[in-house]
Amino acid sequence: MDIKQKIEKANKETVGRLTSGDPVLVDIAPAGEVIPGLEGMMITHSGPPIEWGRMCGAQQGAIIGMVLYEGWAANPDEARAMLEKDKIRLEPNHHHDAVGPMAGTISPTAPVWVVENRAFGNRAFCRQVEGRQQFGEFNEDALDGLRQWRDVWAPTLREALQKMGGLELNPIIIQALQMGDELHNRHSASSSIFANKMAIAISEADIPKERALPTLYYLVGHNLIFLGLAMACGKAITDPASGIEYSTVVTAMARNGTEFGIRVSGLGNEWYTAQAPVVDGLYLPGYSAGDAGLDMGDSAIAETVGWGAFSLGGAPGILTLVGGTPEDALEHTREMRKITTSTHPTYRMPALGFAGTSVGIDIRKVVQTNINPIIDTAIAHKDPGYPIIGAGLVRAPIDCFKGALIAFGQKYNN
Amino acid sequence: MDIKQKIEKANKETVGRLTSGDPVLVDIAPAGEVIPGLEGMMITHSGPPIEWGRMCGAQQGAIIGMVLYEGWAANPDEARAMLEKDKIRLEPNHHHDAVGPMAGTISPTAPVWVVENRAFGNRAFCRQVEGRQQFGEFNEDALDGLRQWRDVWAPTLREALQKMGGLELNPIIIQALQMGDELHNRHSASSSIFANKMAIAISEADIPKERALPTLYYLVGHNLIFLGLAMACGKAITDPASGIEYSTVVTAMARNGTEFGIRVSGLGNEWYTAQAPVVDGLYLPGYSAGDAGLDMGDSAIAETVGWGAFSLGGAPGILTLVGGTPEDALEHTREMRKITTSTHPTYRMPALGFAGTSVGIDIRKVVQTNINPIIDTAIAHKDPGYPIIGAGLVRAPIDCFKGALIAFGQKYNN
Repeated sequence: MDIKQKIEKANKETVGRLTSGDPVLVDIAPAGEVIPGLEGMMITHSGPPIEWGRMCGAQQGAIIGMVLYEGWAANPDEARAMLEKDKIRLEPNHHHDAVGPMAGTISPTAPVWVVENRAFGNRAFCRQVEGRQQFGEFNEDALDGLRQWRDVWAPTLREALQKMGGLELNPIIIQALQMGDELHNRHSASSSIFANKMAIAISEADIPKERALPTLYYLVGHNLIFLGLAMACGKAITDPASGIEYSTVVTAMARNGTEFGIRVSGLGNEWYTAQAPVVDGLYLPGYSAGDAGLDMGDSAIAETVGWGAFSLGGAPGILTLVGGTPEDALEHTREMRKITTSTHPTYRMPALGFAGTSVGIDIRKVVQTNINPIIDTAIAHKDPGYPIIGAGLVRAPIDCFKGALIAFGQKYNN
Repeated sequence: MDIKQKIEKANKETVGRLTSGDPVLVDIAPAGEVIPGLEGMMITHSGPPIEWGRMCGAQQGAIIGMVLYEGWAANPDEARAMLEKDKIRLEPNHHHDAVGPMAGTISPTAPVWVVENRAFGNRAFCRQVEGRQQFGEFNEDALDGLRQWRDVWAPTLREALQKMGGLELNPIIIQALQMGDELHNRHSASSSIFANKMAIAISEADIPKERALPTLYYLVGHNLIFLGLAMACGKAITDPASGIEYSTVVTAMARNGTEFGIRVSGLGNEWYTAQAPVVDGLYLPGYSAGDAGLDMGDSAIAETVGWGAFSLGGAPGILTLVGGTPEDALEHTREMRKITTSTHPTYRMPALGFAGTSVGIDIRKVVQTNINPIIDTAIAHKDPGYPIIGAGLVRAPIDCFKGALIAFGQKYNN
């Protein structure tokens, strides 16, 4: 076999794994109990590795928030001083089988979604999705959302889930894609269906009303709750597809607000990075492009498995959030076919004649066509201390793919 | 003002009423308690008036089912004998502020959705949606679904709803149209959202688990449960728009499986009928076009207010059920703009650039353009005793509109 044949064979294997994932929600547990290597005074974050001093404002704000939430510091100044003296270990989520939206911060007592890929036996983790602390806000109101999650909502859902014996997520994903979700920025259907299922589980588990009712209100009122589950699914699906020799398929895209990084199956756990790009988006009242930080979050794991902008054509309801026309959205999704390896056999989009979602970004195709992957994303402030300020679309920087392709050549062309 | 100006002014008023409806679910009550004039041994049915002898097989089967369900006869033969001797009064739902899907049968002890149009103060009613008795099946299994509804599900929902003080339905309708429902044959989103709201209401109302849990399973497992609510909304919205002198806007389309009938605002409660058409559809395994009855049901009230086929372009997920391509669906929806008076200000379709749904079918435009209204529909068997056998699209017969236009001329041109 020549190298081209070896690559084709490897990519077929990679995409075969990417399209045969069977994600099951098996637990909702404190991160320190379940995430390998998350221990002591440690916080994991989104994107490729980065030290405190180079972190963007929003990620710094979110880290300060987690330090306060854990009670490791009494106030923001104390937290900041600890971080400047490297008293808190900071490592990427992706180095711990985990992902997190926006700043992505996970600390030991924060409950995480635990998703097992039953086809391969691996587990992945994602934190709770909310619109404040993960965007860099760290006041008491922002931290209260995390405490309610830790003390009421997560333990109640955990109890109900355990009684149910786990929840298969592919049926929800398949249905949601037929109901106008793209599973990155739009989770109206998946969240509604998930709430339906958990409402039954809560009733089955005889959970007392004083915990059941606030949890039902949380579930039903949170139209992005499934994003955390979808991201854990994405990570659980991509991990078994990494480390396949000769494969040029992307297995992670992640941003820390300073750098955008990708991982490629045949290149193992190495990151190929470039500066995080500017998001083209719509802003919430009171904010504008001048306030915006750069692209941030592990949530591009969605696009890595074929959701998000890769499924945008099937989710026109999202356009009030990210801008553009239904025709643009269909065109974006069709364009992504040019840089991917295959289509998904069961994740299908009715608006495109029930075509499968495009899956398996090939770094060769990205560089050859000069078509950068499109990503649906939210926008955080450039400074610490703010909630979500907008949402939009962004293109992954081409230099990540060029860098990876050069490294691939160096590794395999000898 | 010449007659044309009078018509334009009247149609503006009619459509103003059609687009300002504010439907609220206020009760779920036994039909005999709430539907005006439904009393004694009486069953209401879908479509324009029809006597037992001319009813199609499916509607006869459904009526036999209701007679057995009410305990007025001990077996089907006895029921049939009573019906042949006119012992049971049969009247159209539309003559009693009500609507019903398929055979549409409503009898006194059957609980119905009670929807109040808060903008005008009127109430409308619709029966439970299921896939057996309303299609003409009358065995014990088919009737058991009606009994569970009467004894467990409806009383539980009623209790929860009363504690909640009613449920506004426009927010659900607006959201569902953005999630790929067309609110006639596809109710995946509306049903899921409704189930979540009722799950909270059931928890709030402290309903014991032995009734709460089966009701939650019923709600969550029934992806067309909202059809009954949507139909009651449609009737509650159209009734205040009827009886406006000089208006050429259609206020009802309904079929009894033998005849298709329409009502026109400026022509009051008169029916203009033609033979019920053949449905162009997809069949469930074991059935084919040779088994099919003709078009049936009051559910075309959905198209009358701009849903169903008039919103098909926004609901491509339905195409596995009714056939066709996403492009056909968009084209059908665009075509309906040619025969309608206005677009809805808040019922919007993301796939059509958030355009409002087309509302207010004008009999003049139908006749002038020769474009018959398209309707999403289900298919019943031609003989009594069968459940649902398929679904598809149908065109309203042009002769109803021609007949109405002639009558309009006779009434107003003198």
